[in-house]
Amino acid sequence: MPLGERAGDKSESRYCGIETEFNDDMPHVLAFNLSSGGFDFIVAPLMDPTYRPSLLQKDSLGSGVLPFAASDLVLSPAQWSSHVVGKISSWIDLDSEDETLRMDSETTLKQEIAWATHLSLQACLLPAPKGTSIANYARCVNQILQGLSNMQLWLRIPLVKPDDDCKDAKSDTLVDSWEIWNSFRVLCEHHSQLSIALDILSTLPSANSLGRWFGESVRAAIVNTDSFLTNARGYPCLSKRHQKLVTAFFNHSIQIIISGKSVHNIPKACVDSASYHDHSVADSQKHPLRPYLDYVAYLYQRMDPLPEQERFELGYRDFLQSPLQPLMDNLEAQTYETFEKDAVKYIQYQRAVCKALLDRVPDEKASSITTVLMVVGAGRGPLVRASLQAAEETGRKLKVFAVEKNPNAVVTLHSLVKLEGWEDTVTIVSSDMRYWTAPEKADILVSELLGSFGDNELSPECLDGAQRFLKQDGISIPSSYTSFLQPVTASKLYNDVKAHKDIVHFETAYVVKMHNVARLAPTQPVFTFTHPKRSNMESNLRYKKLQFMIPNDTGSALVHGFAGYFDATLYKDVHLGIEPSTATPNMFSWFAIFFPLRTPICVTPDSPLEVHFWRCCASTKVWYEWCVSSPSSSPIHNSNGRSYWVGL
Amino acid sequence: MPLGERAGDKSESRYCGIETEFNDDMPHVLAFNLSSGGFDFIVAPLMDPTYRPSLLQKDSLGSGVLPFAASDLVLSPAQWSSHVVGKISSWIDLDSEDETLRMDSETTLKQEIAWATHLSLQACLLPAPKGTSIANYARCVNQILQGLSNMQLWLRIPLVKPDDDCKDAKSDTLVDSWEIWNSFRVLCEHHSQLSIALDILSTLPSANSLGRWFGESVRAAIVNTDSFLTNARGYPCLSKRHQKLVTAFFNHSIQIIISGKSVHNIPKACVDSASYHDHSVADSQKHPLRPYLDYVAYLYQRMDPLPEQERFELGYRDFLQSPLQPLMDNLEAQTYETFEKDAVKYIQYQRAVCKALLDRVPDEKASSITTVLMVVGAGRGPLVRASLQAAEETGRKLKVFAVEKNPNAVVTLHSLVKLEGWEDTVTIVSSDMRYWTAPEKADILVSELLGSFGDNELSPECLDGAQRFLKQDGISIPSSYTSFLQPVTASKLYNDVKAHKDIVHFETAYVVKMHNVARLAPTQPVFTFTHPKRSNMESNLRYKKLQFMIPNDTGSALVHGFAGYFDATLYKDVHLGIEPSTATPNMFSWFAIFFPLRTPICVTPDSPLEVHFWRCCASTKVWYEWCVSSPSSSPIHNSNGRSYWVGL
Repeated sequence: MPLGERAGDKSESRYCGIETEFNDDMPHVLAFNLSSGGFDFIVAPLMDPTYRPSLLQKDSLGSGVLPFAASDLVLSPAQWSSHVVGKISSWIDLDSEDETLRMDSETTLKQEIAWATHLSLQACLLPAPKGTSIANYARCVNQILQGLSNMQLWLRIPLVKPDDDCKDAKSDTLVDSWEIWNSFRVLCEHHSQLSIALDILSTLPSANSLGRWFGESVRAAIVNTDSFLTNARGYPCLSKRHQKLVTAFFNHSIQIIISGKSVHNIPKACVDSASYHDHSVADSQKHPLRPYLDYVAYLYQRMDPLPEQERFELGYRDFLQSPLQPLMDNLEAQTYETFEKDAVKYIQYQRAVCKALLDRVPDEKASSITTVLMVVGAGRGPLVRASLQAAEETGRKLKVFAVEKNPNAVVTLHSLVKLEGWEDTVTIVSSDMRYWTAPEKADILVSELLGSFGDNELSPECLDGAQRFLKQDGISIPSSYTSFLQPVTASKLYNDVKAHKDIVHFETAYVVKMHNVARLAPTQPVFTFTHPKRSNMESNLRYKKLQFMIPNDTGSALVHGFAGYFDATLYKDVHLGIEPSTATPNMFSWFAIFFPLRTPICVTPDSPLEVHFWRCCASTKVWYEWCVSSPSSSPIHNSNGRSYWVGL
Repeated sequence: MPLGERAGDKSESRYCGIETEFNDDMPHVLAFNLSSGGFDFIVAPLMDPTYRPSLLQKDSLGSGVLPFAASDLVLSPAQWSSHVVGKISSWIDLDSEDETLRMDSETTLKQEIAWATHLSLQACLLPAPKGTSIANYARCVNQILQGLSNMQLWLRIPLVKPDDDCKDAKSDTLVDSWEIWNSFRVLCEHHSQLSIALDILSTLPSANSLGRWFGESVRAAIVNTDSFLTNARGYPCLSKRHQKLVTAFFNHSIQIIISGKSVHNIPKACVDSASYHDHSVADSQKHPLRPYLDYVAYLYQRMDPLPEQERFELGYRDFLQSPLQPLMDNLEAQTYETFEKDAVKYIQYQRAVCKALLDRVPDEKASSITTVLMVVGAGRGPLVRASLQAAEETGRKLKVFAVEKNPNAVVTLHSLVKLEGWEDTVTIVSSDMRYWTAPEKADILVSELLGSFGDNELSPECLDGAQRFLKQDGISIPSSYTSFLQPVTASKLYNDVKAHKDIVHFETAYVVKMHNVARLAPTQPVFTFTHPKRSNMESNLRYKKLQFMIPNDTGSALVHGFAGYFDATLYKDVHLGIEPSTATPNMFSWFAIFFPLRTPICVTPDSPLEVHFWRCCASTKVWYEWCVSSPSSSPIHNSNGRSYWVGL
């Protein structure tokens, strides 16, 4: 049964598994662990661990029947596929120096996977590589992956990373297990059905190093009973750091699997008083690992419920969306609807307009001066409303022009003005701001033309056009905006891009609610635009070279691409943005943007990651090009905007 | 006029160019350097070097006419395209910190390339990068390359590499220019129209480091007059190492360009007596650089003529061929014809059969014992002939079975036997050796089933079948064979594979006469097969891990793939092979084999290149898989033989 109910959480991590020993009475194993134990699935060996193909051949005694754990008929197809993960024989060692062992390993691995496929299992657990030499193991798994229909292969990887101190010793046995994983998956060409089951040990590496894994395709975390501590009442519990890690696993849809023998001798008398314990005493005594499951369930149930906004955005997590083309295409009503709901954003705009009005019109002239405010890109009117509210709040007189190029939105604007009785204050202009001939000049220009990466929806080009009708000393809200970037591990996003099997998708930026992503270094500013421009000669071309340093204790990591954000200064100290360290709380109009790399680049803490971003402009379009030049060079992405561009 | 006549040499390197200064009287420049100077082409600036777009804009005086060297009409289209290489303004610096200079550089570069395209020039010389930061230069060149029809862009690169001693100083200014080239071309995605013009300085780096360039797309070598020495008679000459290098350039179709001012004051009296000088005195005195050209011509003419075999193979140089499928397909008469001409090969076979006959039949039993010899894969009979000649030579009695699966070749065999009167000795068997039921067992099995990589035409599988009818103590000729590999830089081959724009071609091995290739480390043995097999259980699967070390003084290099060869022991000390260090001289039946890498890997002398090769077998096919695991991992190539396999 699931670990508990958590509002909004429909992820796999509600289910907890248990690693079992070889047993050819599969129905019993399943009944014992699921019904008595309370686990949701078992990770069970499929083949007698004493089996070796080479021994069989020599004996020539074999009946030809492979010593699998059970006939497929002993469980129903649904039981096999919902409750059993196949555990591949742990003795297999495909990179052994011993050729017989290597051959036996290859034969057995292929036989067990074939059996698991026959049973329609959802996943198999592959044993951890025995050493750092993994090429033959990877070659064999890669061959299997080419012909696999739906099954996942979980490669078991112990969660270990030697400290930097140990590194000096240059001991071969101390390796960062992430590097083994990285070689393995690169050899297997980032296959989407190859994922990870992390073995959690009693000692955990640094937080930065743990963080890397949240950008990788970790499906399960195997917690050995050895890694549990004992609480005052004799019950198993986890260290603070382990608790935090397990909670993070829950948040990233990673399933927990309990492994090992019970090492806690729970006094009978205590069982009832365990505060986190909500199963019957009788049940828990039957299964030796029940107290461990109960503790994990306690951690699950203890989590805060998902905030409403998170719950709303669950479906968007790590899902690639093409950015809008708001200039070339007209937005749909649904899009306006969504954006207009973002109250926080309009409150910020209102605050900015208030401050601008107060600066522009002193109290004593409040009744004599009428400020001309133009909303450029008025849409269905939210900025018109915010501006009028600011005027009311400050007691300033306002004349508003609402300029909008989308004739469909103009219809809504008209009825809004009528409904609200704004006819005397607001003039609606159905025109593209870049070509409109204004009857007078504006004191204040208000726009919301920003994309996830700031300038990526061509705010600079639009405001270049609108600046014609802004007074010399006029104010633009926003007055400036800056884009930000940081390198990320994002294997899910990378694989989704790769699935298209073309270069075009690797040279496109995507809007994404990033979740299963590891942010490898703090963000850095990229391009800044300031309005109004001081000179018409100022170009909208930009070029920025960035150097990111991966924190020392992270270890090596794979960069699948870059997460992009923006921060905008609306007016003076009123800002708006999604750059993680300064993000405006509870604003949901923008997800981040993701710039992929055609070939992920492995970075280490000793060498900086050097990245180049260009904003290029031609007469009909604007586009970005990007590349990495260190530690090694990538091709330049999106040359001449051949794959991705925004139309003018 | 060309540097000279060299039998068989039709390469570009017969033509020598000269770098000129800006001059808007293009007809004069051309006449002076070609007619008076004797050069074949000029490398001439296209634009007034004082031009800067930003100055033009500020002045606003410009007529709108760009200050190009001349109107397109001053030369005929043929003159422009055959005799002029456009020299792009050398002041341009796209990675300057100075934004104005950067913008000016981009504008000018694009204008000059557009002009060169208008003139249908064959190539433009791009100035050397000013520093180690090259990303913006590469981005701009890459944009240009996307839209370029036929023109080549030659990036000027000084031929410098600091000694390892200097490296310790960690001076930023001392960089291996190859690394700059490598970053540049990776950023430009190995574009086939981007190539190199090497600037030859007076000091040359080590021979190993020079060797790298012969695998790169070097089109021209610019030799400055400063790099010339002065001989006893006051004439320019080159150091021994420079001479050797220039000769190597000639051999690799690299054109020489003379650059700089005359720094040799040639005494008039001496001119006649110059031994290598075959132009008239009057001519040579007209052009200050004529003595340099004459010296280069002298080096050209001094070269040995191409050997006949090389001349015959010229057309195959660096040309990718798919390996034969001799089991699935029947060879054509033309193929037999070519192979049979390889006298050296059959002499070796005859020597091997001689030795085997002498070992098998002592002199005293020469007349009583008849040796049963089976030629398996007899083709049109050359091995039958070699065997009979060996019998005659040794005075041994022979009974020959000629087994051949190709019914067309069997026709030829029949007439051969008739023609030669071998009816009593030779029995022709029209059958596949793997399925033939032999009437008796053989003493000696002779076959020629080897491919460029030894086992790649399935000799092991065929001989497994034939071994059934070999006596327990019988002899197989060949008795063993081993494949060899070495990493190579081979940009031409890589680009030819890449041109197919699919993965299949990157996962295929090719037969190639390798020429413009840099062999980066000595070969290492890969797979060995020995016949007859000791046991039927012995499998034909193979797995080999190889570690290559790049010599220290090479510097970094790019590995585009691996060159493969074989060496076969026919019998005892009689061998046959194409492994470069032990290759059988004057044998032409086999070119090397090339295994490409999907993404070239940069290697340095400090870290070994670790490579894995597998020979995999299934019921209907045999294939190789390969990968690199260090310094970084590549994907495993050709998983399950999905792209390239040999049918059984």
